[in-house]
Amino acid sequence: MTHTTERPRSDAARARLLEAAVAAFAEKGFHGTTTRDIASAAGMSPAALYVHHKSKEELLYLISRSGHERTLALVREGIASSDDPAAQLWRVVHDFAVHHARGHTVARIVNYELTALNPEHFTEIREIRHQIDCEIQTLVEKGVSVGIFETPEPRMAAVALLSLGIDIARWYHDGGGWTPENIADRYAEMALRIVGAHA
Amino acid sequence: MTHTTERPRSDAARARLLEAAVAAFAEKGFHGTTTRDIASAAGMSPAALYVHHKSKEELLYLISRSGHERTLALVREGIASSDDPAAQLWRVVHDFAVHHARGHTVARIVNYELTALNPEHFTEIREIRHQIDCEIQTLVEKGVSVGIFETPEPRMAAVALLSLGIDIARWYHDGGGWTPENIADRYAEMALRIVGAHA
Repeated sequence: MTHTTERPRSDAARARLLEAAVAAFAEKGFHGTTTRDIASAAGMSPAALYVHHKSKEELLYLISRSGHERTLALVREGIASSDDPAAQLWRVVHDFAVHHARGHTVARIVNYELTALNPEHFTEIREIRHQIDCEIQTLVEKGVSVGIFETPEPRMAAVALLSLGIDIARWYHDGGGWTPENIADRYAEMALRIVGAHA
Repeated sequence: MTHTTERPRSDAARARLLEAAVAAFAEKGFHGTTTRDIASAAGMSPAALYVHHKSKEELLYLISRSGHERTLALVREGIASSDDPAAQLWRVVHDFAVHHARGHTVARIVNYELTALNPEHFTEIREIRHQIDCEIQTLVEKGVSVGIFETPEPRMAAVALLSLGIDIARWYHDGGGWTPENIADRYAEMALRIVGAHA
């Protein structure tokens, strides 16, 4: 019954490796990072890394999956927060912006290293991204159909809304002039303008 | 006087290396690319690469500089095209969008590998980026001051406008449902909404 005592230690090692992988991928990119870099940043030998994770790619996949799942969850929570498309969109864009500013390091990896995933993992992550896209698109279309939004091409507006939020992770840096909440408030207002929400 | 006959051949070799570097950086990232990868894609030995370019970093710098100079030029041409801030913004955002969709491979490298530049090159490129940012910000501020635009924080609106354009390079792929011109037309309309342009 060593299992019960070893599990927490194993979980901690896994978490430490994930954290080290995030730092290494952010600094040198996925392809420029070796498993040795990750292992030594986590205070382990490369051999020890393989006890916990199958490969460098698996680490990227785990980072990517949890990042995408959190984003999908916050989008769905924002939509569930109201029945009014304008209030829903405000909440979704606001929380999406906060998430991408605060979590900019992970968000950069998650969005810019997608093609480094193996085909099976890529397909799985693409499916989550597709669900995120669909939620936003459906929300914009609903706003248009009930006459609250006015935009000639809801699908393109949805792409632009996601784009604005995702790109925050590229330009945002801690200690700049704006807090994640400042950005989120303004971006939520801009989102309502983009979809032509009636005042 | 072998110089005059050797120059064109040398220019062609340099151009071939730049092209190979773009393809390699796009596929494996700057840190994941070796000078050997670039040289062999250009049909040369690694030693031959160093005859033409000092380093892998210099190749990144040359790609980055020409990309940024082209972007600054198109922004300035758009502003010079009219005296009306709405018409100027429409043109700038339109051309910026076309540029980032058509040149998405180079634009990704230019925007996502900035931190791989050496400090001196990084400073030079950051200065061009700063000029691009200033042009857009000044344009939005001018529109607000003459009462044509209405936005509570012109600087944040300017960041969002640039963000929308830059992020096209991330999501755009050839053969998708929209042409660069489709995207540019819609994005120019959205830009006018973001700054609160009066109809």
